[in-house]
Amino acid sequence: MSTLPMTFLDRYNELLSAAIEKYKFRSEPKELYEPMNYILSNAGKRIRPMMVLMAAEAFGAPVEKALKPALGIEFFHNFTLIHDDIMDEAPLRRGVPTIHTLHGTNTAILSGDGLLLKAYKFFEDLEPELFKPCIRIFTQTGILLCEGQQYDVLFENQENVTYSHYLRMITYKTGILAASAFEIGAIIAKAPSADARSIFNFGMNLGIAFQIMDDYLDVFGDEKKFGKKHAGDIYENKKTILYLMARDFSSAEDREELDFWYSKKTDNIDKIYGVEKIFKKAKAGEKALLEIQKHTDLAFQYLAKINLPDAKKQAFLDLSNYLLKRVS
Amino acid sequence: MSTLPMTFLDRYNELLSAAIEKYKFRSEPKELYEPMNYILSNAGKRIRPMMVLMAAEAFGAPVEKALKPALGIEFFHNFTLIHDDIMDEAPLRRGVPTIHTLHGTNTAILSGDGLLLKAYKFFEDLEPELFKPCIRIFTQTGILLCEGQQYDVLFENQENVTYSHYLRMITYKTGILAASAFEIGAIIAKAPSADARSIFNFGMNLGIAFQIMDDYLDVFGDEKKFGKKHAGDIYENKKTILYLMARDFSSAEDREELDFWYSKKTDNIDKIYGVEKIFKKAKAGEKALLEIQKHTDLAFQYLAKINLPDAKKQAFLDLSNYLLKRVS
Repeated sequence: MSTLPMTFLDRYNELLSAAIEKYKFRSEPKELYEPMNYILSNAGKRIRPMMVLMAAEAFGAPVEKALKPALGIEFFHNFTLIHDDIMDEAPLRRGVPTIHTLHGTNTAILSGDGLLLKAYKFFEDLEPELFKPCIRIFTQTGILLCEGQQYDVLFENQENVTYSHYLRMITYKTGILAASAFEIGAIIAKAPSADARSIFNFGMNLGIAFQIMDDYLDVFGDEKKFGKKHAGDIYENKKTILYLMARDFSSAEDREELDFWYSKKTDNIDKIYGVEKIFKKAKAGEKALLEIQKHTDLAFQYLAKINLPDAKKQAFLDLSNYLLKRVS
Repeated sequence: MSTLPMTFLDRYNELLSAAIEKYKFRSEPKELYEPMNYILSNAGKRIRPMMVLMAAEAFGAPVEKALKPALGIEFFHNFTLIHDDIMDEAPLRRGVPTIHTLHGTNTAILSGDGLLLKAYKFFEDLEPELFKPCIRIFTQTGILLCEGQQYDVLFENQENVTYSHYLRMITYKTGILAASAFEIGAIIAKAPSADARSIFNFGMNLGIAFQIMDDYLDVFGDEKKFGKKHAGDIYENKKTILYLMARDFSSAEDREELDFWYSKKTDNIDKIYGVEKIFKKAKAGEKALLEIQKHTDLAFQYLAKINLPDAKKQAFLDLSNYLLKRVS
């Protein structure tokens, strides 16, 4: 990973870690709340709550005012992980057993529900005029995430997935939450609504670029730096951008071979070799990089529109570099 | 069931049915939204949304202003049913197959999540000063419901369940939602906060009395009028008020026999006879009726405190009679 903006991210990380510790659930019944504390303490990168803090500060709010709403975004994200892991039958998350693996599906459903509801509470310090727009965005983001998750589930058995289906799915699953995290930060700082909208669109395109990069790195990344198993998406027949581009830009013969491999779930290394060869022949990697570039450019265009001095925008550029330079 | 207040309930029912039809989900993906429409159209008694409308009208708001928040309460209630049915492995709900039975657990989890989020949207027509208190109550109610559901799940393997454990569980699972439905109606009508609190406490005690009555009717009700299978709770070893009172007020010998029967899941009719004999000897039914009376009296005391003319309170009395006179 890029080392450039570490001090900058470290500061937000410390704030967020302290806040998560402070607001740890101490209520009864512990069977409901311990799984919530468990997933929150096995921290991911906490990029989404950082986005709230970053936007709030850039637009002039004290970071403290955005801290609880930032946790609300983090809790919300973890609620989706708990429920998604049940649906995906995932045994591990961030290297540790998932909640449904440890405590069963019922506890995972209920702890997820509880975490979503608790997330709403973290906006309650805001005055009514800020509370309402933040909650509207928050709710709408949740609804789109559910839709995105449903599309993702449907993809598995759907024959004619197109790039535009894929783009909608990743927009809902990844783009919108990043967009909303920035927008909520901006609203808390009472940013002009045009700027709040621009930072929303910046976040959406950054999130999309990030997700496409994730698909790209599955095959073309350095496993050690990327931190995920090489070609995991191919093993699982995931309809990633690489697969979709390869299906669109391959000869009939190659497409038939691709369909053959994607009709089986197998650990056979021949599958990985075969599929990767087709991906390369179709220049699927290059096409993915072009899409990443396109959405990065769009993100920067929205950032440019925002009425803030360049110094205030530096954090957004640093974050973009951090998120998108994971290949290097 | 009592026929007394039917015109009165019919009017609300018509309003609610029309609103549910009007706001039926028409969005994509249909795999997410059709299960929501399915459970909403297989209407229950819609008591909870009626409570919102009833309180709003009593305190002087036009019923239309409360209609969407009332749907929010109904959607929320149905979200809990979808997820509870997964946990209980219930094959049927209101006489039709449950969502997880029809579409699998994953769809049921996601449709439940989506319905909870959609419920929040139904408050968005309220101005910020009403939106915030309503959402606070709504969220807190959801959290307590999750806690109540967790306690209920834990009861199954818990040896020392006491009446006070039971009372907390039914308060969270049934009392609070009725209480909040009334309070939200009152807030929408800008009722004085003391009155909003009183109608909350009225609803909580009414809900508790209703739930105890439900336990009572399982054994002592007329199956045809009650509409549920006789002694279903005994078959399922449910720790109802009848069981808890019998455990507390039986001889050592009877308690041993009760524990014996509750250690097996069996359809053996001897179990039902045996357990019912112990319930009767311990006067568990009479003790339950005393608790129902206690909470009904409390409810009416709170109702008496409210600063409204008697004519405006009649609807609340009619509803209480309707809900509690199910034996007659």
